[in-house]
Amino acid sequence: MEVGFIGLGSMGHPMAANILKAGHSLRVWNRTKDKAGDLIAAGARWVDRPADVMEEDGIVITMVSDDAALHGVTDAADGLGEKLGRGGLHVSMSTVSPATAAALAAYHRARGSAYVGAPVFGRPEAAAAKKLFVLAAGPAAACERAQPLLEAVGQKVFELGEDPVHASVLKLGGNFMIMAAIEAMAEACTLGEQYGLAREKLIDVMTQTLFPAPLYANYGRQIATHSYTPAGFKLRLGLKDANLVLNAANRVNVPMPLAQLMQARFQSGVAKSRGDIDWAGVALNVAEDAGLSPGA
Amino acid sequence: MEVGFIGLGSMGHPMAANILKAGHSLRVWNRTKDKAGDLIAAGARWVDRPADVMEEDGIVITMVSDDAALHGVTDAADGLGEKLGRGGLHVSMSTVSPATAAALAAYHRARGSAYVGAPVFGRPEAAAAKKLFVLAAGPAAACERAQPLLEAVGQKVFELGEDPVHASVLKLGGNFMIMAAIEAMAEACTLGEQYGLAREKLIDVMTQTLFPAPLYANYGRQIATHSYTPAGFKLRLGLKDANLVLNAANRVNVPMPLAQLMQARFQSGVAKSRGDIDWAGVALNVAEDAGLSPGA
Amino acid sequence: MEVGFIGLGSMGHPMAANILKAGHSLRVWNRTKDKAGDLIAAGARWVDRPADVMEEDGIVITMVSDDAALHGVTDAADGLGEKLGRGGLHVSMSTVSPATAAALAAYHRARGSAYVGAPVFGRPEAAAAKKLFVLAAGPAAACERAQPLLEAVGQKVFELGEDPVHASVLKLGGNFMIMAAIEAMAEACTLGEQYGLAREKLIDVMTQTLFPAPLYANYGRQIATHSYTPAGFKLRLGLKDANLVLNAANRVNVPMPLAQLMQARFQSGVAKSRGDIDWAGVALNVAEDAGLSPGA
Amino acid sequence: MEVGFIGLGSMGHPMAANILKAGHSLRVWNRTKDKAGDLIAAGARWVDRPADVMEEDGIVITMVSDDAALHGVTDAADGLGEKLGRGGLHVSMSTVSPATAAALAAYHRARGSAYVGAPVFGRPEAAAAKKLFVLAAGPAAACERAQPLLEAVGQKVFELGEDPVHASVLKLGGNFMIMAAIEAMAEACTLGEQYGLAREKLIDVMTQTLFPAPLYANYGRQIATHSYTPAGFKLRLGLKDANLVLNAANRVNVPMPLAQLMQARFQSGVAKSRGDIDWAGVALNVAEDAGLSPGA
Repeated sequence: MEVGFIGLGSMGHPMAANILKAGHSLRVWNRTKDKAGDLIAAGARWVDRPADVMEEDGIVITMVSDDAALHGVTDAADGLGEKLGRGGLHVSMSTVSPATAAALAAYHRARGSAYVGAPVFGRPEAAAAKKLFVLAAGPAAACERAQPLLEAVGQKVFELGEDPVHASVLKLGGNFMIMAAIEAMAEACTLGEQYGLAREKLIDVMTQTLFPAPLYANYGRQIATHSYTPAGFKLRLGLKDANLVLNAANRVNVPMPLAQLMQARFQSGVAKSRGDIDWAGVALNVAEDAGLSPGA
Repeated sequence: MEVGFIGLGSMGHPMAANILKAGHSLRVWNRTKDKAGDLIAAGARWVDRPADVMEEDGIVITMVSDDAALHGVTDAADGLGEKLGRGGLHVSMSTVSPATAAALAAYHRARGSAYVGAPVFGRPEAAAAKKLFVLAAGPAAACERAQPLLEAVGQKVFELGEDPVHASVLKLGGNFMIMAAIEAMAEACTLGEQYGLAREKLIDVMTQTLFPAPLYANYGRQIATHSYTPAGFKLRLGLKDANLVLNAANRVNVPMPLAQLMQARFQSGVAKSRGDIDWAGVALNVAEDAGLSPGA
Repeated sequence: MEVGFIGLGSMGHPMAANILKAGHSLRVWNRTKDKAGDLIAAGARWVDRPADVMEEDGIVITMVSDDAALHGVTDAADGLGEKLGRGGLHVSMSTVSPATAAALAAYHRARGSAYVGAPVFGRPEAAAAKKLFVLAAGPAAACERAQPLLEAVGQKVFELGEDPVHASVLKLGGNFMIMAAIEAMAEACTLGEQYGLAREKLIDVMTQTLFPAPLYANYGRQIATHSYTPAGFKLRLGLKDANLVLNAANRVNVPMPLAQLMQARFQSGVAKSRGDIDWAGVALNVAEDAGLSPGA
Repeated sequence: MEVGFIGLGSMGHPMAANILKAGHSLRVWNRTKDKAGDLIAAGARWVDRPADVMEEDGIVITMVSDDAALHGVTDAADGLGEKLGRGGLHVSMSTVSPATAAALAAYHRARGSAYVGAPVFGRPEAAAAKKLFVLAAGPAAACERAQPLLEAVGQKVFELGEDPVHASVLKLGGNFMIMAAIEAMAEACTLGEQYGLAREKLIDVMTQTLFPAPLYANYGRQIATHSYTPAGFKLRLGLKDANLVLNAANRVNVPMPLAQLMQARFQSGVAKSRGDIDWAGVALNVAEDAGLSPGA
């Protein structure tokens, strides 16, 4: 099918490439054109404004950096929203707030177009390997229409019902749970270290026993050795996500003390000029609080 | 081999049974004799005091409820410690503090006997199914001697070196990481719930994607449905373990804010008369803080 | 002098009345006219739009509920901002974010008008009694011009220099410190209560010894007796202020765990339908966490 | 009257001196004799063991460093407890746990002697100036008997009833509330600093407005200028007190998240080799978390 793709960052680019590989016809737009070079070479068509990536009843996928960027390509000038008309479909795969998901769903509904929220679990390597998990929610017909595209980028698509807000909350919940696992490993490793237990040993045993999940093994390895570059997911993005979680929680008055702890950790990480290391790098703060100097 | 076993509670009993099944000769002691009935029927010999479960150069396993109980059967009157002489071996499988592990290791060393710390991961069902993970640390020769017994109770034995303190810290670290996972799921579920996302749905997706570990599935199911009885591990024991973690951390000045959060959760749970439900029941407090009444 | 006054709520109304009493000529605007009745009777002139409360080079004081309301009367349609020209002065006495203070200062500077941030410490009774403390910051000449008006509403005016942002941050810092005192008293009272020490006794001794400040006596009395109505300052406004504090902190990456704790307390209070009681009512949550039922 | 005094540290010494000045006859004991030199010169009599500071029906005051030290001079070998008989009175002025207060009250009751708990608010300068606040609780007759001595060391004596536990809890509550004030000032100062507001300015305004208590002025000055030596009260003692508060809270299942925060702050301070600076020095950690290097 014909599909427009907006946002060719570290996640969007491999996703677009997989859609192309799956045999779909692709128009692309990005803030900077240079990211599109190889996709164009592989057959994608470059367009000069978000509004041009699809026809009025077409399909457009967005994978942009945050809520503001999503509004920027949707309901701002030259955005896809004004053009996308009755029968059009916007598949939004960025991590955004429930409030933005709700607002854009209403925005499209009012125009006769449809909005499917479809954020993903997985980092760039997973995107390249078509191993993403897709969390999709929106009107049933729209989800069905989006299905081939979602399958082209992920290993599994979860249907979460009609409300894109649910996909947003689930995505935020997952990222929050990763943060919690990072903090838990960091505190446990530092405790062990102060008793002479090697950090690697602790992680090694945990991942062979109670926590046999790749996530614990991957982050655990980083935390055990304090190796946070290159970043799989930057600490400053961790702060962005912690903020999304807490803003979402604040709107419905759900106290989330563990999420607050992580927000403070990420703030401190950024304040200490660690915004560009992996977000597991908050383990440095945990160690420093205990008087250690792991970064030295 | 001949082995003494002290402590026939919900964990100790199935462990002793498995040792018996493995063909070893067993003497047992427990605070109350009635727990020993079926073991005696199966060939174990009852003794009337801890000191009688083994000969002077024998082996004794202890699986008791806490540090005080361990001291009570070891270095108190009628305890195994005074009798166990040169060549004797004490395999301590209870969850105890690093301080107690260090103290008892020194106690035995001074008497020519050996102390192996060998706490386990796993709940009573796992003990019954011989699925425990054993974390063993102590003098190499002593660990080797204990090996057949440890293999008789667990699916895997991890060798953690010479210092029983390391086994203690690793065990506490693991229990702490479980607490963290419980809190993370509880906060995420409550956030989702307030946005209309079914708790079961959230857990279902998490365990199929980022967190494919049995622990997340098992506790997640409890948390999703707020079903905390019968308890696999009682909330009041969660408080005990949180206290062990924080006391251990305090001795080496390691701030553990996430462990503190969990201590407060368990304190509140006990204060609200929930000490006997499963420790995942702290999710009730998370929900109540958000104005929900899940227990009603 | 001639002065316009926008915002006749529980704080603004007594402040406007004091300005009138001090002999100044007053034009007033409020979202609802009925609040202005007695002021009009006392000589104030009602106007129908914010833009009409002053002439182009005149002075206008705003005392509105939040950042959005301040923007609404300033740089929105019919706002004072477009009219207030070279030589005009906007004295903003609301509690607003540093970001809004900075934005409006720049807004006025660009138009040749001046912006003085002058938030106050004190509740409605203090406003009525002319006992407010005024925290003023802005261009020196503008502050000097505003001085007689600030003196008309407060017992003391603090000059904080040229940058209105500093007045905003100081005001937020003060409100945060009140929250901290509330939490401290609440935790101490609950601890004491569980040991049989009367809450009133504890507060009584504290305020006669370490904490001889009216604030401790006043909030302490409420907390000791769990009497939170009528509200001097509503719990939902406490949440608003905690959010202002944390948003300000987030912009400069300052972790404020104590402010986070208070945000969670206020969220929980609102979630439990206590938004309209006094913000000291978070002490109810502290007690409930300890298994008490003070509200029952 | 004749009185024995045990414990001549930075608090006990000036208290003993004031009792001497008030005309009472004094016998003293301390772990090291050199502290007693000037008191002996002024008329006090040195004794070689705690048990010798008073006769069997006499009065003894203890002012020692912690619970263990208090047990050491009371119910240990050569302690005052075995000697003090029917009619004897032990006035315990140290900061100790409610559990120790309860245990020693019972200990004395069983022997016909009386126990008055009488901890104080105030630092060494206040002790020297006879400005301490005394929190007294115990049997009425015993309190009455102790009254002249308590008045000799303090500016005011608060009668807290029959149970020494209440004096202990009140004392711990007060120290906890000081910690909270320190943290509040530290977070507010750091927030202000990052917005360009001078720390001194913030403290200056706070203490002239909302917080006109000497405690805020004194600690505020330290925190504003990051000047923590010489210590008025050492950070490591702050950790000791935070532990006393939290252990007391744990025994009655009162979650105290703010006390936990302070425990973590003090742990981190000690871990960073700051145990000997003033406890207000936790403000260094607050600043470091925000990426500042105030100690450099």
